[in-house]
Amino acid sequence: MTVTTIEEIHKYPDQTVTLRGWLYNKRESGKLVFLILRDGTGFIQCVAFKKDLPEEVWDAAKSVTQESSLMITGSVRKEERAPYCGYEMGVQNIEIVSKVEGEYPISLKEHGADFLLEHRHLWLRTPSQMAVMRIRAEVMAASRDFFNERGFVNVDAPIITANACEGTTNLFQIDYFEDQAYLSQTGQLYMEAAALALGKVYCLGPAFRAEKSKTRKHLTEFWMIEPEVAFLTFEENLAMQEEYVSYVIQRVLKTRAAELNLLERDTSKLADITAPFPKISYDDAVKLLQEKGSEIQWGDDLGAPDETLLGEHFQKPVFVHRFPSAIKAFYMKPDPDRPEVALGADLIAPDGYGELIGGGQRIDDYDLLVQRIQEHDLPMEAFGWYLDLRKYGSVPHGGFGLGIERFVAWISGVEHVRETSPFPRTIYRIQP
Amino acid sequence: MTVTTIEEIHKYPDQTVTLRGWLYNKRESGKLVFLILRDGTGFIQCVAFKKDLPEEVWDAAKSVTQESSLMITGSVRKEERAPYCGYEMGVQNIEIVSKVEGEYPISLKEHGADFLLEHRHLWLRTPSQMAVMRIRAEVMAASRDFFNERGFVNVDAPIITANACEGTTNLFQIDYFEDQAYLSQTGQLYMEAAALALGKVYCLGPAFRAEKSKTRKHLTEFWMIEPEVAFLTFEENLAMQEEYVSYVIQRVLKTRAAELNLLERDTSKLADITAPFPKISYDDAVKLLQEKGSEIQWGDDLGAPDETLLGEHFQKPVFVHRFPSAIKAFYMKPDPDRPEVALGADLIAPDGYGELIGGGQRIDDYDLLVQRIQEHDLPMEAFGWYLDLRKYGSVPHGGFGLGIERFVAWISGVEHVRETSPFPRTIYRIQP
Repeated sequence: MTVTTIEEIHKYPDQTVTLRGWLYNKRESGKLVFLILRDGTGFIQCVAFKKDLPEEVWDAAKSVTQESSLMITGSVRKEERAPYCGYEMGVQNIEIVSKVEGEYPISLKEHGADFLLEHRHLWLRTPSQMAVMRIRAEVMAASRDFFNERGFVNVDAPIITANACEGTTNLFQIDYFEDQAYLSQTGQLYMEAAALALGKVYCLGPAFRAEKSKTRKHLTEFWMIEPEVAFLTFEENLAMQEEYVSYVIQRVLKTRAAELNLLERDTSKLADITAPFPKISYDDAVKLLQEKGSEIQWGDDLGAPDETLLGEHFQKPVFVHRFPSAIKAFYMKPDPDRPEVALGADLIAPDGYGELIGGGQRIDDYDLLVQRIQEHDLPMEAFGWYLDLRKYGSVPHGGFGLGIERFVAWISGVEHVRETSPFPRTIYRIQP
Repeated sequence: MTVTTIEEIHKYPDQTVTLRGWLYNKRESGKLVFLILRDGTGFIQCVAFKKDLPEEVWDAAKSVTQESSLMITGSVRKEERAPYCGYEMGVQNIEIVSKVEGEYPISLKEHGADFLLEHRHLWLRTPSQMAVMRIRAEVMAASRDFFNERGFVNVDAPIITANACEGTTNLFQIDYFEDQAYLSQTGQLYMEAAALALGKVYCLGPAFRAEKSKTRKHLTEFWMIEPEVAFLTFEENLAMQEEYVSYVIQRVLKTRAAELNLLERDTSKLADITAPFPKISYDDAVKLLQEKGSEIQWGDDLGAPDETLLGEHFQKPVFVHRFPSAIKAFYMKPDPDRPEVALGADLIAPDGYGELIGGGQRIDDYDLLVQRIQEHDLPMEAFGWYLDLRKYGSVPHGGFGLGIERFVAWISGVEHVRETSPFPRTIYRIQP
């Protein structure tokens, strides 16, 4: 007997095949039972007719419960009106692999967020969560492909680190044998070292922030892509960012249309996201925001409401560039024409998804970097190797960091990043 | 002026272009200076003739020091005898971006391992280390492509976890706000949950072992790929493993031939690594090893010398299957025909690289899993969600885990895994 998957069923019209999966839902109507099977690749309606079936198969169809695992053998029919996949299966045999006894925790009605997170291992089985996971996987693959195809070398940054890159406030501490160490917040400093060896590099791995924030945009553990390029100008850096973001979105639109449709995402808005993106200086952004009623003053960082206002105004991701150096990381290169602002930019997503990218040029002058490390009260000895990069063959260089979960949330149109991480970690949650 | 890279230089024969990079090495011979430039994509010899050059350019050629960053403009010549890339550049102009003053720490002579690890940020710039990093990136990409092309969904397992999957002995502990948590040793348990949602999944991310071992095969932080498949048989599991390993090796042979050549890897041995691989039961392996002089007794785990003996005997990766259940993880499914052995296998690499893969079938019976958790003295409450997977739609399933750094070490022929991690972490090293 041919064993296949729902995704491949279109290859077997009018043939008898076996599918293996789980019962997603069931409807009964007298002598008919409609079994909705899911197998990870899709959903299909299987129709059991009492008159066509031996008694034990009919009994199995009647008695099988939600999320029981089973194998169904039957004939494949193309059926335009069939829900889910455009095909239907006429049941000939059912083999229940493992029957769920008692009530399945996640019913098809609404549950609260806490309950669902507590049952993340089962919540993942619902159609919306599977769709988000497939979109996430595609964003990861598209991100790697974009940089691999352009000659970047994937270099993984370490997670365990002795360096407190941006201060220790938001770092998780680890007991490392007799020592103390931290979970890495960013791979950037390591990518700078790698870029001076390999020219163009990126890392894509987990990053950690021990922030006590409970917003819909923050997780304590998230995945981040961080490309870094030697001999890169600021303008080239922004161009790389807008091309990358556009590439990923256009690819997901093409390859994950069914999932976006299931999530009821308005894809017409995404279709418009193509490079170039609008660019506004921090100075002008502050003025614009003040006109729109924000209380922001020059020198302040953008607040979440400010980001939302900018997103509404531009309806596209927008670069805000040349922030005051004082509110940016110690390694940011000052604008040579105006040293009080940094040659960096944040890319703000539309629809209130906030800062998608932070990036810019890095200080390549040894003395200035020493000065900044002192000003920021960072431990000089931990940065010896980082300073070496300015001592031995320093070059202009830059890059950016993008958090995958927030990107996926925006693309999928889901409200909260906790739905875009397979097993989200937040201040109150490290289970399951 | 066209700015290009060494990798692309073959597109510009007899044209004048600019290269940007670092001085790898220099030879002088009277009125000639040979500058070896590296730019991350390759190495090229640039020839400066005193008589062709303005005085300041000649002075730059004479005075530029190892690892200084520079831009060289010149004419491209195809030259079969030229070292490195088969092209040579006739220097017309040199612009030094940042000159290294004093001695560069890593000279071209031999250094000790500790010194090189201490300077990992600079050591990465040497040809052998760049070659290993490129091979590593290709192994990562090939691994993802193999599973992506076969319909697997990439699901990332969490790093921060409350679960001590295989006991707490080898776990790093984290301060998680007011709580205690651990760094994940394996994503497998999470992949099992995801496989029951999405059918076929894999994770590829960092894993952590707080082992005090100082062998050439261990790091405290390494990357691991862990595929997991619902409705998989043990035989299908082994077939998936041998196809995956063969695919990656054959692809690296094709796409990273230059790097393997630079590392003086005997590629004829790798060319033979194609599926299927030999398979031997643990029982027979113990007998074979005893004949070869090992003191192993039935019930013992394989020691490193045993693995080396098996590798020598088979000259190919070899599966050792059906180990005693007592020495394997609590979740391993017993062989139904002989419950004292587990339906699992280790894949042993040749040439003393040791265990490449550990994998097998997982217990899918609820009661047996409860019993094993008790026998292994593991905290039942932490495994509530894992037990749910056996309560709600359990299916036969299995998968495996492969450590990327060890795989790369074998493929590259480098002796120690610390050279295959960009920034290796060992018991005594978390810097740089």
